[in-house]
Amino acid sequence: MTTTLYTAAGSVGLASHIALEEINDTGKLDYDLVLLDMQNNEHRGSNYKAINPKARVPSLIVNETVLTETPAMLVYLAQIAPESSLVLPDDPMQFALIQSFNSYLCSTVHIAHAHKYRGNRWVDDEAALAALTANVPKTMTDCCISLEEHFIEGPWVMGNTFSICDPYLFSIAAWLESNGVDMDQFQKIKNHQEIMLTRNSVKSAMQQLQSG
Amino acid sequence: MTTTLYTAAGSVGLASHIALEEINDTGKLDYDLVLLDMQNNEHRGSNYKAINPKARVPSLIVNETVLTETPAMLVYLAQIAPESSLVLPDDPMQFALIQSFNSYLCSTVHIAHAHKYRGNRWVDDEAALAALTANVPKTMTDCCISLEEHFIEGPWVMGNTFSICDPYLFSIAAWLESNGVDMDQFQKIKNHQEIMLTRNSVKSAMQQLQSG
Repeated sequence: MTTTLYTAAGSVGLASHIALEEINDTGKLDYDLVLLDMQNNEHRGSNYKAINPKARVPSLIVNETVLTETPAMLVYLAQIAPESSLVLPDDPMQFALIQSFNSYLCSTVHIAHAHKYRGNRWVDDEAALAALTANVPKTMTDCCISLEEHFIEGPWVMGNTFSICDPYLFSIAAWLESNGVDMDQFQKIKNHQEIMLTRNSVKSAMQQLQSG
Repeated sequence: MTTTLYTAAGSVGLASHIALEEINDTGKLDYDLVLLDMQNNEHRGSNYKAINPKARVPSLIVNETVLTETPAMLVYLAQIAPESSLVLPDDPMQFALIQSFNSYLCSTVHIAHAHKYRGNRWVDDEAALAALTANVPKTMTDCCISLEEHFIEGPWVMGNTFSICDPYLFSIAAWLESNGVDMDQFQKIKNHQEIMLTRNSVKSAMQQLQSG
């Protein structure tokens, strides 16, 4: 089996990258890492669009199959490595609550963030784009309030057990400060960042991005 | 076990509603249906927010547990009813491709649609809201091109086998005409709507919404 992750520094691809490194802690999965230069729009070039026509990162290529969308990739990685820290609960509702958290990150929190610099997905008008960007500190703060009050158990997202929610939250939380969120309001998220930074998987992934 | 679906006519709750009716074809799951009046903002009222603080539909309540987010709900329903048409593939990658499709619907296609009337999730400015609304025919047409060219196998989303992707696509496709999409360009989606309308689950769900 050949496995390749296409990702980019600063992207949500960090979630799947950390998940791959969590698996590597058990020595079970070799994979190739391809870092795209998003500043130079490499993800929008014809080479990459032949792989992923959505022109977004990340993509996970397993043999000839292309898998996209972070929530799907995280569950896939957990399922192929049940001996790793990513292991999923057998109980359908416990699994569903993990999926629900990750779905909220992808369809609400990440989307709120995307309105900062990617507003042209939805509108061309310059004034409208500026209005979308200006509102991001408010919408991302609202997302953090929702996450802290209702969804993050602490210290890990699901409580005392690490899960595939944690790399995903960590990847998105990395944007909060530059999104204008006052992190001092959000102690659970700050603590989560701190404990994630102690993990070998996170250290490895971040070193690979820096040297890439 | 008590199961209750909170949904509303015209909402993406239709996907989980159809899934529940698919299960009911095998006679295995009684559930209660609660229809909210979104025109009168019932989903934003304190009664419903005590159930689902996101103030969105749908919510699935199983005993005391509240489950939100359509991709998570569909997989949960499939897992508790493996004898139904919703049955998931055992192969992790085949399951991942189903999840990837549904994640794309929730984080890209549904979000493009939401910019028509729900732009105030991201901006308050009236001119910006009007610009977002005006662009919806273009963004939804782009989504349909992507779905037809790359992701819908036909006749069902995954090819010859019905899956949890189908109720979800059907629910979102119901919005396309009013979103200003020229449906004559999208034969796979039109065919999909037609075969979905022949299913008992779809007929039952739509009757319940009309009489609700």
